[in-house]
Amino acid sequence: MSALCLILGNKNYSSWSLRPWLVMKHLGLDFDEIIVPLLQGNFKEELFTHSPSGKVPVLKVDGQEIWDSLAICEYLNEEYPDANLWPIDKSARAHARSISYEMHSGFFNIRNDMPMNMRRARGNFHASPLCQAEIDRILAIWTDCRKNYGQNGPFLFGDFSIADAMFAPVVSRFDTYGVAVDGVVKDYMETILNMAHLKEWRDAGKVEEWIIDEAEI
Amino acid sequence: MSALCLILGNKNYSSWSLRPWLVMKHLGLDFDEIIVPLLQGNFKEELFTHSPSGKVPVLKVDGQEIWDSLAICEYLNEEYPDANLWPIDKSARAHARSISYEMHSGFFNIRNDMPMNMRRARGNFHASPLCQAEIDRILAIWTDCRKNYGQNGPFLFGDFSIADAMFAPVVSRFDTYGVAVDGVVKDYMETILNMAHLKEWRDAGKVEEWIIDEAEI
Repeated sequence: MSALCLILGNKNYSSWSLRPWLVMKHLGLDFDEIIVPLLQGNFKEELFTHSPSGKVPVLKVDGQEIWDSLAICEYLNEEYPDANLWPIDKSARAHARSISYEMHSGFFNIRNDMPMNMRRARGNFHASPLCQAEIDRILAIWTDCRKNYGQNGPFLFGDFSIADAMFAPVVSRFDTYGVAVDGVVKDYMETILNMAHLKEWRDAGKVEEWIIDEAEI
Repeated sequence: MSALCLILGNKNYSSWSLRPWLVMKHLGLDFDEIIVPLLQGNFKEELFTHSPSGKVPVLKVDGQEIWDSLAICEYLNEEYPDANLWPIDKSARAHARSISYEMHSGFFNIRNDMPMNMRRARGNFHASPLCQAEIDRILAIWTDCRKNYGQNGPFLFGDFSIADAMFAPVVSRFDTYGVAVDGVVKDYMETILNMAHLKEWRDAGKVEEWIIDEAEI
């Protein structure tokens, strides 16, 4: 058994779980996974056996429980300083944290109206005005990053960073819900959708036995 | 004019603004403040002149805009490493981040039902079951911290840390809404409520001219 264990929700639905998982895969870490299928049976009770917050994801490190998607990422950033999980340049790093934390604390309409569901039939979605405003904000964030840092690589800040992990579930949603994109945003979404680790997660999610009605997510 | 400028919402109401402000005061920094009174006139347009997120707080450093309360705190932690804005001990630091990030991404019922309002008449509040569950979770977080780290000082992890800044607006709410507390939680709340910087903020908030109906906050 590895000294690291990541407690996750179902891969098809749990967008918060995907974020630190992508970072841990990027680091090439050896870790165990425990999946607690959300909205199934006594899942809440099971969640509380893993974390006092009662939420996924949770990282267990030598017996300590570290929870919250972005707190786990910051822990990994400190633990593996040579991996440059945030951009090396100080100004870019502050920018990367600003957009990642904006994602972490907001975008409630996208969360509610466009839950991650990689098995969803493409398209057939009409955004409410509030949801559309959040979609537009995210498209502006990605466009701004690609224009400022695009010369350094295909991710938001050139190389892969925690910011890409934070937005990867949104890329998946914009893809499956059929948000119209072009130019640098389309290129960026293809970069994320073609990541080997994202494909691995999506393939695992697609064959999960649990099915949740969209209205319940 | 200082090289640092913090853009804030009204001090009486803007709980997110209070968080990095407390950390900057703790650091003894010289910084300018610009207050954009929320829900007044064209405040949204004014917010967008300060930050592409359209939200407060925003820290301007040498022309760069850094936004989101906790992203600003992480920026300050990197910029002032000797200040130990997170606990020095690695395990305590991971714990401090877990609870701070849990606060940053959740507790929607407390946010909605108990908006920060330092002028509010004490008490006269009945929590819904969902809100009460969140109150109980926060009381459990504080109790756990005080029992584990109380021997090191009066704050959540002994010395003042970003975790205290993240929970300070919640302390203010529990005080003004009259949440029943005792023991280590009562002691902790008194520690926060008696901080000179918190008093300075509260005194400034109480004499602000802007008044927002509680239903609109």
